[in-house]
Parts: sequence; structure tokens; C-alpha cells
Amino acid sequence: MLIVMKHDASAEDVAGVVHVIEEMGYTAHAVASSNRTAIGITGNQTAIDSSRFAYLSGVAETIRVTKPYKLTTLDFHPEKTIVRVGEETNAPTIGGEELAIIAGPCAVESHAQAFAIAAVVKRSGARFFRAGAYKPRTSPYAFQGMGEEGLRILAEVREAFDLKIVTEAMNEVQVDLVERYGDMIQIGARNMQNFPLLRRAGRSHLPVLLKRGMAATFDELLSSAEYILAEGNQNLVLCERGIRTFTQHTRNTLDLAVVPALRRISHLPIIVDPSHGTGKSYMVAALARAGVAVGADGLMIEVHDHPDHALSDGSQSLTVPDYERAITEVRLIHEALMPVAVA
Amino acid sequence: MLIVMKHDASAEDVAGVVHVIEEMGYTAHAVASSNRTAIGITGNQTAIDSSRFAYLSGVAETIRVTKPYKLTTLDFHPEKTIVRVGEETNAPTIGGEELAIIAGPCAVESHAQAFAIAAVVKRSGARFFRAGAYKPRTSPYAFQGMGEEGLRILAEVREAFDLKIVTEAMNEVQVDLVERYGDMIQIGARNMQNFPLLRRAGRSHLPVLLKRGMAATFDELLSSAEYILAEGNQNLVLCERGIRTFTQHTRNTLDLAVVPALRRISHLPIIVDPSHGTGKSYMVAALARAGVAVGADGLMIEVHDHPDHALSDGSQSLTVPDYERAITEVRLIHEALMPVAVA
Amino acid sequence: MLIVMKHDASAEDVAGVVHVIEEMGYTAHAVASSNRTAIGITGNQTAIDSSRFAYLSGVAETIRVTKPYKLTTLDFHPEKTIVRVGEETNAPTIGGEELAIIAGPCAVESHAQAFAIAAVVKRSGARFFRAGAYKPRTSPYAFQGMGEEGLRILAEVREAFDLKIVTEAMNEVQVDLVERYGDMIQIGARNMQNFPLLRRAGRSHLPVLLKRGMAATFDELLSSAEYILAEGNQNLVLCERGIRTFTQHTRNTLDLAVVPALRRISHLPIIVDPSHGTGKSYMVAALARAGVAVGADGLMIEVHDHPDHALSDGSQSLTVPDYERAITEVRLIHEALMPVAVA
Amino acid sequence: MLIVMKHDASAEDVAGVVHVIEEMGYTAHAVASSNRTAIGITGNQTAIDSSRFAYLSGVAETIRVTKPYKLTTLDFHPEKTIVRVGEETNAPTIGGEELAIIAGPCAVESHAQAFAIAAVVKRSGARFFRAGAYKPRTSPYAFQGMGEEGLRILAEVREAFDLKIVTEAMNEVQVDLVERYGDMIQIGARNMQNFPLLRRAGRSHLPVLLKRGMAATFDELLSSAEYILAEGNQNLVLCERGIRTFTQHTRNTLDLAVVPALRRISHLPIIVDPSHGTGKSYMVAALARAGVAVGADGLMIEVHDHPDHALSDGSQSLTVPDYERAITEVRLIHEALMPVAVA
Repeated sequence: MLIVMKHDASAEDVAGVVHVIEEMGYTAHAVASSNRTAIGITGNQTAIDSSRFAYLSGVAETIRVTKPYKLTTLDFHPEKTIVRVGEETNAPTIGGEELAIIAGPCAVESHAQAFAIAAVVKRSGARFFRAGAYKPRTSPYAFQGMGEEGLRILAEVREAFDLKIVTEAMNEVQVDLVERYGDMIQIGARNMQNFPLLRRAGRSHLPVLLKRGMAATFDELLSSAEYILAEGNQNLVLCERGIRTFTQHTRNTLDLAVVPALRRISHLPIIVDPSHGTGKSYMVAALARAGVAVGADGLMIEVHDHPDHALSDGSQSLTVPDYERAITEVRLIHEALMPVAVA
Repeated sequence: MLIVMKHDASAEDVAGVVHVIEEMGYTAHAVASSNRTAIGITGNQTAIDSSRFAYLSGVAETIRVTKPYKLTTLDFHPEKTIVRVGEETNAPTIGGEELAIIAGPCAVESHAQAFAIAAVVKRSGARFFRAGAYKPRTSPYAFQGMGEEGLRILAEVREAFDLKIVTEAMNEVQVDLVERYGDMIQIGARNMQNFPLLRRAGRSHLPVLLKRGMAATFDELLSSAEYILAEGNQNLVLCERGIRTFTQHTRNTLDLAVVPALRRISHLPIIVDPSHGTGKSYMVAALARAGVAVGADGLMIEVHDHPDHALSDGSQSLTVPDYERAITEVRLIHEALMPVAVA
Repeated sequence: MLIVMKHDASAEDVAGVVHVIEEMGYTAHAVASSNRTAIGITGNQTAIDSSRFAYLSGVAETIRVTKPYKLTTLDFHPEKTIVRVGEETNAPTIGGEELAIIAGPCAVESHAQAFAIAAVVKRSGARFFRAGAYKPRTSPYAFQGMGEEGLRILAEVREAFDLKIVTEAMNEVQVDLVERYGDMIQIGARNMQNFPLLRRAGRSHLPVLLKRGMAATFDELLSSAEYILAEGNQNLVLCERGIRTFTQHTRNTLDLAVVPALRRISHLPIIVDPSHGTGKSYMVAALARAGVAVGADGLMIEVHDHPDHALSDGSQSLTVPDYERAITEVRLIHEALMPVAVA
Repeated sequence: MLIVMKHDASAEDVAGVVHVIEEMGYTAHAVASSNRTAIGITGNQTAIDSSRFAYLSGVAETIRVTKPYKLTTLDFHPEKTIVRVGEETNAPTIGGEELAIIAGPCAVESHAQAFAIAAVVKRSGARFFRAGAYKPRTSPYAFQGMGEEGLRILAEVREAFDLKIVTEAMNEVQVDLVERYGDMIQIGARNMQNFPLLRRAGRSHLPVLLKRGMAATFDELLSSAEYILAEGNQNLVLCERGIRTFTQHTRNTLDLAVVPALRRISHLPIIVDPSHGTGKSYMVAALARAGVAVGADGLMIEVHDHPDHALSDGSQSLTVPDYERAITEVRLIHEALMPVAVA
């Protein structure tokens, strides 16, 4: 249930409602927007009697929630969330007017490789560097990432290039490490329903990038997001990276319709990953353009200085010139659409 | 097998190769591009010995074809096909520089409805009018279309608005009728593997719009296209209209990656249908933008003057103002990308 | 809408209700079961006012139908349909106590091949012979079937072995030919939504075998069945032959749950095709066993005397010894389950 | 790479090969079957030169492995694995002649509920009790399980009924707890690619039940199995529990073809879960029968004394009478097929 407060409700009114909720044994989540406060109730297994709240001071209305998520919705938080990555005033944002570009190799392979690619990423105007130190690999015999040594290299990239580091954690212990070295915790597609991991990320002070699972429905994606918000972390960005279908011409099928579907009911930003979303470098630029055109808040793109020698995902990584051309093209679209304020 | 002739091969050289092919009991398909002629061989069940052709006069090389299609490929026809709909010099084209917009209601419902919507379509600058007279409906109890009376209305729309008529035929007899009243034969998703129908369309003088089946792989789409080309009709446009996946937030999942995949190996134009591709009017504009950004040659969009009263597919039809805004947006993207010559 | 008559309603009562329906401009479908008559109404675009019928003589109740099908349901026809193929008293049936086995090669290839395999099929106790004279092939260059010559061979098989002939028609003209030479019209998966073909089969005097489309939902399968019943042909058997999913270890994914789902709401018999359902001969026997265990009324199995030389689908055809072992196994299961009357 | 030793190779020969492998910096996995020893090599990123081994004493042949798994294959371990759950001589097994039945509620809800259902399970002749103490739930607001208190109840069930406890762990810490209270660690579908969890389970002394992910291909399932075997735990059972497809009549589509596909290349036992595989109680018995008929080594079935009041998955839980009838039916099939030794 959501309790929407009146415009002129006082802080005491809000505290009063929260108090009643807690007396009932539930958890209250109060969020103040520019023109009203909404209070979500979680922890109930069954429907709550709304009459308990209707006459409390400052209450405008109560909304029964039938979906398995509440905090992710525009009902609860009517303004779009802008996630700021970093504390500084000019820290990059995702969800606002700027197009967020998160680029880098699939995995950190060496100091030299990371620095070479980071220079390319920086030069393109992107403000986020992505690279995995812990890699979820289908086979136990594939390269599993450099581990903490990789994270240390990423921390050096951050200092040298003033880029924000987005990197994956596969379990709770790895979240501790990403918090030490990185700027944004990535939860990968295979872990979208790793609920202990989601809870841990929900207690982090870092923003989180949650990738949609390969077979996740829209409701499941939002429910996983809800796990993170319910723990208190509001700095969450979603990422469409392709779903598993019968098609063979791509590794995954990029489901771009999830972007307008999300806009319609949620305040959370969403970006698109055309690299995993296609698995084929020759079509990454085309789908990156489509991602921006459909209204995404940003892109996550794999680029490698030597894709043929990449230790993982080489077949979907762009070469440096192809990456630069793709960035040029997506910026043309982003600028063309600005006047009409799409999405 | 494809036999590629030398640049300076003579008409006699070509005739000589064709003669040998026909002596072997196969069919020869010679196509002259601006700088060479290629001759496809069909009708063989097993591999053909290329040595039979290697030393014929004018032969440059022989290419063994392992895919189930040949005539649809860039190997056979290295220049992109531009389909001209109509005989007049300023007839609209699909596959060239102009962005083809095919718009209209799902079904012809009445003279008044068709004319009202055609006026909107014309005003938007679109040059094609779509509407079904024969509707493939899941239920036998749903509106099945006006039949030949609907085709007559479409012929009047053509005269009144100078719009090209694109309309569906579901069997061979209906192709006869579309040939009489329309400009382009649409073969719907449910009939993508209706092989007798494909063969009939392949013998038509009208261009064909072939929609991808709901569960069709990329190879199956091109193989169905091959049925049409193999019968002699080279004026073929493909259409991505969404595939069936596990997702629930849309009626189908628009697989935009098929556009760059097709560009890579085929000369055929391709358009995108965001109306059927999503099934939800509120996201049609977003996916239309994505379709143009990914590099499609055009769009097929449903628009209705009163979507709430449409006899079919009302939930995915745009209102007139939404349609006009969508067209404005897609043109912004088309123009923005022109200088970089994407796709 | 369905109108259920009282147990003791007279023929005049039924005629009276039918008369009112026809006056309203709709079509009435009256079906008498052992203990009541139900009258389905079709042809209406919108809901019908049930009060028009409530007080007519002999009416027990009216049932509003919200699904897009009526005649296929147990509400309308509460006893399971048993389809008899042939007029003679000992004609084989599908849907009753006997397990229907429909076996044979993918395609008729020659008189010798058809007779050799028919002998195997007859010896196994099966009573139906399947083989295609018209083959829907993905590629225009693949073997398309022997056509009418193939049908003539099938007619000879029928005479020589006393087997019922089940063979596919891909368009209306081919239905005419199957009616001349065969015993049961097969409509293939690719044509499950070829509505003109469904209507034509619905007007045939032969029973129909309708295969589920590769991407057909349960409701779509029943809606296509409804097209056939609505034209008057009640002798319809459905067939599960695998759906298209992301899996790679089989050509299709056999969706056996469709059998109990169908039993729950429909009176129509259903058989399972483990040959197309897997595409791999080594697993056909295992899935045939599963098909019988799940409660199917029969099986359709491909067997070839020389699978390695089959002109189509060799990789999924059983050898003769493997076919015979599979039949032995499925009969063991069929007999084991008889006492508990499963399904 | 696999190195297959001669029949008469000595222990010294094996040790010699292992020594060479370790000198090269790789890991050796030696497994002795009844008539030969095979040594798998893991840890290499690139192909290994087989000539290094060809002339070592006792080596029969070297086999290059191109799949991402080795230890799971019949090449490596040519006899089917029989997993014994428990140390006692009459401990139940999975993969041998007995049909393993793992039954119980979705979740432990109370001492009374667990004991009531365990009595039913015991009476049916099943030897395994399943129930979750930690539940992976889509929504953060759904019942998440009783935690360690639930595990303590399960340990009491074990003592009282002599049933083996199969229960899920969602992260490494929960594996510690399951090891303390249970007999077999279940890894759920959502965690099939939770690689840190797989590694932890691979180091457990308990057998593991690994459920196939909702969108997992056959190769991915075996690769995840390989993670567990590679850590040393050979007591692994796989479980098919349905995949995500476009169908709506079931919650998942049970892909029974995975059973014969697995038999063909792997020595691991596999069971089928018709409860999650359909999500609908009315069809669980039918699919349970199909699972046994297709050749599975056992079944995992949800049963509840009061399905309508179950805290999770009530809609797919069998009532007690339906459970008992299902067990009767599957045993009839298991016995009927024994003489023909299928699969």
C-alpha cells in the first residue's frame, strides 16, 4: 500500500503515519518529492485495511498496490530518478539530460590494456569506465578475471583519467571489494535473481547497475529492483542487455521495448547494452543508435584495443575506430531528439 | 552455385554459361549489376561440379553456396535493391535515400474511415497507404475484413490521394484481386511459409512486402524471400514485425538486430513495423524511432481516426496527433544520420 | 454464447431456439450429447443479450463465452470426441480406447519405398500410414514432394495394406486431391493459421489432423480448431509437434503439457509427434513413451527403411528395428496405465 | 584434454601422467572405472600438445575436448553415476535401478506442517523429503522462508521418518548451514550460474542437486555441473524443472528431451520436477508419468496437506490423495519399462 500525503502535510503528519505503520509491525518508506510525500508500506503478507489511515492528519489518499513492487513505481516516486555517481558537484549522472556512456573492455587483462582503452574512452567524452575483475564465465576453464589485482588497476584508471569505475560483484564478499575500489556496483544478468546479493547491494553506499536477466520478465526485473530499493539504496540504474529467444543471428535479442514500458510506470533510469545485446561487433553501432533513439538514458559498450586477442567477449567488442564512429552517431541522435523531448 | 562473370564478359559468354546450365537440367538466373553479371543455378539437389564452368569463356569465378538461399544474397546481387512502387518516374521507392512511410488503419472499415485516415497519411508526407481488405484473424468470429468491397475503396483512395496501396493477400485467389486493385502485395507473418502463396506472389508483376513470421529464424526469412525471387519477381521488401518470446509487456518482441544482419548479406530492403512489433500504441513512436536509427528503409505504422472504435488492432493504432508527432521524430533521426551514411 | 437445453427439451424446443438465433442474423450450432443438447451461437461481433433466450421453452441456462472459441469446448460438447477414420464398422478411431499409431516416411519417394515402409507399419499393428506428397520445405531448392503421383502411390498402399492414409494439403486445391486419394487431411504446423485452408478443411467430408504451429499458444491452437468446427466438420484431431524455443539440443521443444491442458477444456482428441518434436532419431522413442504416458490418444512417427537416403527429414526418422522397439515400449505403457484410467 | 589409460596400466603409470600434468601447471582429475582409468586436464586456457603424453607409459589414447566440459562426459567417466545419499549401506540412491522420489512442500512453514506432510511422503514409499528453509522469491515482500529454524525442523523430520533431507542454499553461508542439518544441497534454477555458489557446493561432502536454469541451454547446464565436479564433488544429480517459453498454459515448459540428450553424453543422473515444470497442480501427475516414461532417474514433487493455505507455490502443490495417485501411476510405468531397460 502507498499512502500519499497532502501537499501541505507537515513533518509531524508524516511521522504520525510512519508511527502507525510501525506499530502494525510493518516497515515504512517515506519519500519526499518536490510537491508531495509518499509513504510505502512493506512487510505485509496480506492486504492492509486502508481505513486505518484514511483519517490520519495530512493523508491525501491511499493506493492499493497489486504488483509485487511499489518503491520502483511512479506512484511512489513521481519524478524520474537521476543517479549521480560520485560526490563532487560535477559528478556524472544517469537519468538526466546527459547521455551516459559506460565503455571499456569486458575484463581487465593488464595495466597496459586497461590504460590504453581508458585513454580511448576518455577521449570519446564518456565519463564511465567498465571492466570486470570478477567474470561470470559459463565454463570453469575460461578466464575468470584478475580478481582484486584487477580492481586495483581499475582504481588507478580512475585516478589517472577521472573516469567512474563500473564493475561487477558476483557475491556479497565481492561487493565489499567493489566498494573499496570502484564507483558503481554492477550486478550481472545471471545474478538478477541472486537475492542475497541484491540485498547486500541495497545496503551499499554506492549506486548499483542492475542488468536484466536473460529470461526475466518486466515484472521480475522491477521486483529485483525493489529488493535493492527496499534495503534503502535509491541509486539504482537498470540495464537491458538482451533476452534469450529462438533467434540465431545474435547471441541475445535486445528488447528495446522495455525502455518505454519502464518509463510508463517507473522512475528508475535505464541504459542499453548493445554489446551483450547482440554479441556481434558488426551490429553494435546500429543497436546503440536504436537504444538512444528509443529513449534510453545511456549505453554500455565494450571496446578493446585488440579485440582479436581479448581474453573474453572479443567477438562483440568494438575496435577503437568503430567505437569512435558509434559514439559520434549516437550523439547525433541524442542531439536531434533533444528539442522534441521524447520519451 | 553462383557463377560470377568477368567485367568484360560478353552477352554471348553469358548465354553460353546459361546454355550449359540448362543442358544439365537446372535453371539459370542471370542478373547484371553495374560492373558484372552473376548467374545463379537452382534446381540441383546435390552439389554441382564447378569444374564444368571454370573454363567457359567469360567466367571469373564460381562460388559454392551452402546456405539454402542464393538469389537474396549480395554475392549474387552486390548492389542494394531499390524497389520502385509504380511505373511513373516519380514513383515512391523503398531501399533508396527516401524513408518509406507506409501508414493506415489495420483494416478498411468504410469509405468514410478510409478517406479520413488517408487524408492524414497524405498530409504527413507518407506515400503509401496500408489497410487490409482480407484480415487473418485468430478467431473465426472476429471481423474478417470487407473483402473485394474493401479493395474497391482502396482503389478509390489511390486515385483521390495519389497514395500507393499496400494490402494483404492470404491465398492465391486474393493475389489476383490485389493485382487488380492495389500496388503492392503484402504477405503476412502467418503466411511467411505458405509456399504456394509465395510462389504465386513470385509470379506477380506487383512488388511484394513479405513480413517475417512470428517464429521465423533469419535463414527461414531469407529462404521464403528466395521462393519469391526464384519465380522471377525481384521487387521484394522484407518487414520485421516482432517475434514471439516469453515477454509479456509487449505483444511481440521487435528484433531490430535483423536489420544489420540482413544488410550484411542481402541486397533486399527491409522496413520495420512498430505497431505489430509492440501491440501497444503508447510505445509505437519510441520503436519507430529505433527502427529508423537501426537503419531500416522505412516504417509500417497503424493510425486510426478513432482507435477506440477500430474493428481490429485498435490497441496498437496511433491517434492522429500521436502519429504526426511520431513522423516528425523519425524524420529528425533520418536527417541527423544522413551525413554519416549509416548502415 | 452457449445455450444449454434441459434434459427433457423436445426437438421443437431446439428448433425454436435455433429459429430465434437465425432471426437475429447469427448462426446456430446445435450438438446433442447423450444427456443434453447445447446450441452455440456464432457470427456475433458483440455480446448477445441472454435475456432473449432465458424464457424460451426448454432452455436450461445460457453461458457467456469469453474465450475466442466455443465449439471446441467441453461446455459445448461434454463428451470426448472419438474420430472414426473410414466408414466401415471396424474403422480405426482416434480418441477412444485404442492407441492410434500413425507411421510412415516424411515423404513418398517411390512406389518401392512406400510399399517397403508400409509393410513395416502394418506389421507393427499401426492402422494409419503417413507420408507427404506435397512437402512444405523451407528452401525452394529442396525436394518438394511427388505431387499427385505421390498421392496415387498412397492410394495403392491403402488398398494393398488396409491402412488409412494421412497426408498433407497446403492449399485449397490440394485438399480436393487429398479428398480423392486419402483418408485424413493433415494441416501442417506452418499452415495452422492459414485461415482459407482451415475453412476449406472444415467443409470436407474427411477427418482433419491439425498440427500446432511452431509459435502457437494454446488459445490460438483452439481458435484454429474452431475455424474447422465452425464450418461443420466435427472430425478433428489435434497434434502437438514441438514449439520453437531457445534450446539447441532438439529441433523443437515438445510441449507435452498441452495434452492435459487440452483435456481440461476440450473434447477434441490429441496426438503427439515425437519425430518433428525432437528432430533427432535417437530420442524419438523416449519422447514417444512420454507422449503416451502424458495421456495422448496416439502418436505420429516417422520411420524409413533407409533414413540415410531419405529425401527429407532423414535425421529424425527411425530405422525399422528402432521403430519396432519404440512401438513395443509405448504399448507397454499404454497397457500399464489402462487400469488407472489416467488423463 | 582427456588421457585414457590402458586396461593394464599400473598405479605408477597413472601417477606418472598426473605428475607431468602438474609440472605443466595444470590440474589432473584421475577417475578409475571398472575397466580403465581416465585423466582429465583442466586449467589450460589453450589447447595442449598431445604429443607430450602419447609415449608415456600406460597411455592408450588422448582425446581432444572441444566442449566447455569434460568431467561430466561419458568419455571421461564411461559408467553412469549412481549417487548415494547417506553413508549407511541401505542409503537411497539416485541413478540406479530404484526410482527416486523427492517429495514435500515448497517451504517449511511449521513443525506441524512438516511432520504432517512427511508422514504422507514416507507412507508413499518415497525416501527423500524436500522443503525450503531459504526461499528465492521474486518479490521482496513474499514469504522468504523460516531460515535456520526451518532447517532445525527438517533435521527433526529426518530423525522421525528416516527420510533424506533435500533443501536449497542460495549463497555460500547457507551451504554451511545445509551441511549441518541436511543430506543433499539443492541449487535452484535462479542460481544455476551463480558460480561462487557452484564452487562452494563442489567442495562440500554432501551430494548436490542442481536445477536447470529457466533459460539454460544444454551446454550451459553441463558447464555448471562441470564447476561442481571440477572442485572435487562427484555426487551430483541434475534436475529438469521447465524452461521459459512463450506458452501461457503453464508456468514453464518442461523440456523432457533433455533426459535422452543427457544420457547420450553424460554419466550424471537426472530427475524431473513436474511441479515447477508446469506450475499447475492439475497436470503434475500427467507430467510426472511422462518424466518416468522418458527415462528420468527420479521425480521431485510438491505435496501439501492444505495447498490452499500454502505460503508459497500452493497452485502447483498436489493434495495428499492426488499425490498418492500420482505415485501409483508413475510406479506402474517404472515397472512396465523395467524389462525393456529403456534409456
